[in-house]
Amino acid sequence: MTTSQPPVSPLSLPGNAAIEQQVQAAIAAIGARPALTHVFFVACGGSLAIMQPNKYVIDREAQGIRADIYNSNEFIHRNPRGLSENSVVILCSHSGTTPETVEAAAFARSRGALTVSLTHVADSPLAQASEHVVHYEHGPEILPSDSSSALLYRLVFGLLQTREQNPKYAALLRSLQALPAVIARVKEAHREQSIAWGRDYKRETLIYTMASGANYGVAYSFAICLLQEMQWIHSQAIHAGEYFHGPFEITDDDVPFILLLGLDETRPLEERALAFAQKFSQRLLVLDAKTFDLTGFDPEMSGYLTPLVFSPLLRQYVDRLAEERGHPLSVRRYMWKMDY
Amino acid sequence: MTTSQPPVSPLSLPGNAAIEQQVQAAIAAIGARPALTHVFFVACGGSLAIMQPNKYVIDREAQGIRADIYNSNEFIHRNPRGLSENSVVILCSHSGTTPETVEAAAFARSRGALTVSLTHVADSPLAQASEHVVHYEHGPEILPSDSSSALLYRLVFGLLQTREQNPKYAALLRSLQALPAVIARVKEAHREQSIAWGRDYKRETLIYTMASGANYGVAYSFAICLLQEMQWIHSQAIHAGEYFHGPFEITDDDVPFILLLGLDETRPLEERALAFAQKFSQRLLVLDAKTFDLTGFDPEMSGYLTPLVFSPLLRQYVDRLAEERGHPLSVRRYMWKMDY
Repeated sequence: MTTSQPPVSPLSLPGNAAIEQQVQAAIAAIGARPALTHVFFVACGGSLAIMQPNKYVIDREAQGIRADIYNSNEFIHRNPRGLSENSVVILCSHSGTTPETVEAAAFARSRGALTVSLTHVADSPLAQASEHVVHYEHGPEILPSDSSSALLYRLVFGLLQTREQNPKYAALLRSLQALPAVIARVKEAHREQSIAWGRDYKRETLIYTMASGANYGVAYSFAICLLQEMQWIHSQAIHAGEYFHGPFEITDDDVPFILLLGLDETRPLEERALAFAQKFSQRLLVLDAKTFDLTGFDPEMSGYLTPLVFSPLLRQYVDRLAEERGHPLSVRRYMWKMDY
Repeated sequence: MTTSQPPVSPLSLPGNAAIEQQVQAAIAAIGARPALTHVFFVACGGSLAIMQPNKYVIDREAQGIRADIYNSNEFIHRNPRGLSENSVVILCSHSGTTPETVEAAAFARSRGALTVSLTHVADSPLAQASEHVVHYEHGPEILPSDSSSALLYRLVFGLLQTREQNPKYAALLRSLQALPAVIARVKEAHREQSIAWGRDYKRETLIYTMASGANYGVAYSFAICLLQEMQWIHSQAIHAGEYFHGPFEITDDDVPFILLLGLDETRPLEERALAFAQKFSQRLLVLDAKTFDLTGFDPEMSGYLTPLVFSPLLRQYVDRLAEERGHPLSVRRYMWKMDY
């Protein structure tokens, strides 16, 4: 393991130059830590979900660096003994105001860890609490390579390059250049099906999601943020490997599932779950990345990048569901409306 | 970090002497590994759930050892790069025949890791695939200190003692001596309430569970094994810290929850979730370990040991639910009845 390397060279990625500078500065600071051994991914809800594939990357790619992922409040109270000056803590909050995440940044700094935060709001409390900030863009008009999910990968593959000479950073940037077109093509290919799904599933009170590996975070996010939070539809993100050790017993003709089949190394788990569910449920939405036109993705990066395609694709499906239900995704009964 | 220590001294724990020998042999082998840096907890379903508090222990207690926890098939396909001769892989399968877990043991050994397996069946395929085996007892008549959950703690605190001179192994064994009486008292105190709960909840088609920290595994196990698998009731184990970042929006008068309030350091998360849920749902079962008579538990171990009390207590509740529903916990429609 190396201890101090020059930061990675920026490639010509179309996008916000200020963001690129922030990413480079964070990677340089990570490279300058004398003995980095651990990455903690810390956030809440949807921001935590997009970190999950990054633990998958560290697990598969890193020689001498290990990773943990925690809800911000769990992180603070669990108080991992390994949190130290040899740790980098990567945090994320869209508004930059999530109290537990802001507190987690302060807690991590008090233990000597390097803090790097992603937020949409550049001068937010989280940004102020963290040593390094990467401001991400948001909304339909931005380049997907400047989204929070893409920036997390840029940070993590940059970290792996600067610490361990992992060679995949360049392939990541090349692939991210293709991401906008990939997403547009996949969404267009699913336009009719998403309209039909919204119509057909509008009366469901429960919809399960299922995935594994790099895609589990997308399934988790869709279950807790899109279905439970934004549609008040019951859900659980079932891990495709765990399905056979309990959850599969609730499979039945009329129990709806969304199954994600990705391109990472755990795809056989998702295929096995699909093969079973197909036998006993008539209510499956199967999104299979093998059917996607991923032209422009580096083949060795496709497994990692699939969640960044599933996520906007699923958004298209739930947009149609919300429309059919007359329940806008923006409606809340508790969130932001009271103290909790 | 030490590299090789004599095994811990057996204390006079009433129980099976052969099991104690197996635990001691496994701890000695762990102590003899030259440079142990990582523990992988690997299993499926209920066997995976009982490992979750053990990661909590390593996170909080270990100086130089880190831990990961994976479903067996996820572990094999994720293929963590850190898996090496510096790893110990702790596996568990009740029957010792779970194919993914048997394969995970072989996979771990092929990478040079030390394998220690827990199983109820001493000459099972998992036992044969592993270097060290701890045979646990099972059923209502056994000493809870010889249960799989207790033996996992004995292994993990033994590991921490032999590797890092962690002093809590003796307190664990003292507390485990008190466990049978604690469980009996707590179950008796909840006898009437569990009967009433079974009657009152028998028509529910969905029941959420919620917990954090050391207790999350119990909530997970109850959701996927007891409710989904054995009662065909929909569920999700909601992490109490994540509740406020999505799932809480499904809270309503008639949405049932089981909330666990433990004694570990994450209790404030569970208390916050309860305070919110109480305002908006009339269908809460709250099991609060502060109300339990835990006489005989060492105070510094109570947070870790609470899951070992919640688990049999929840079994009493679901026994009543199953009785009222006329749906025995032993009934399956798919599991063990077909290939999958």
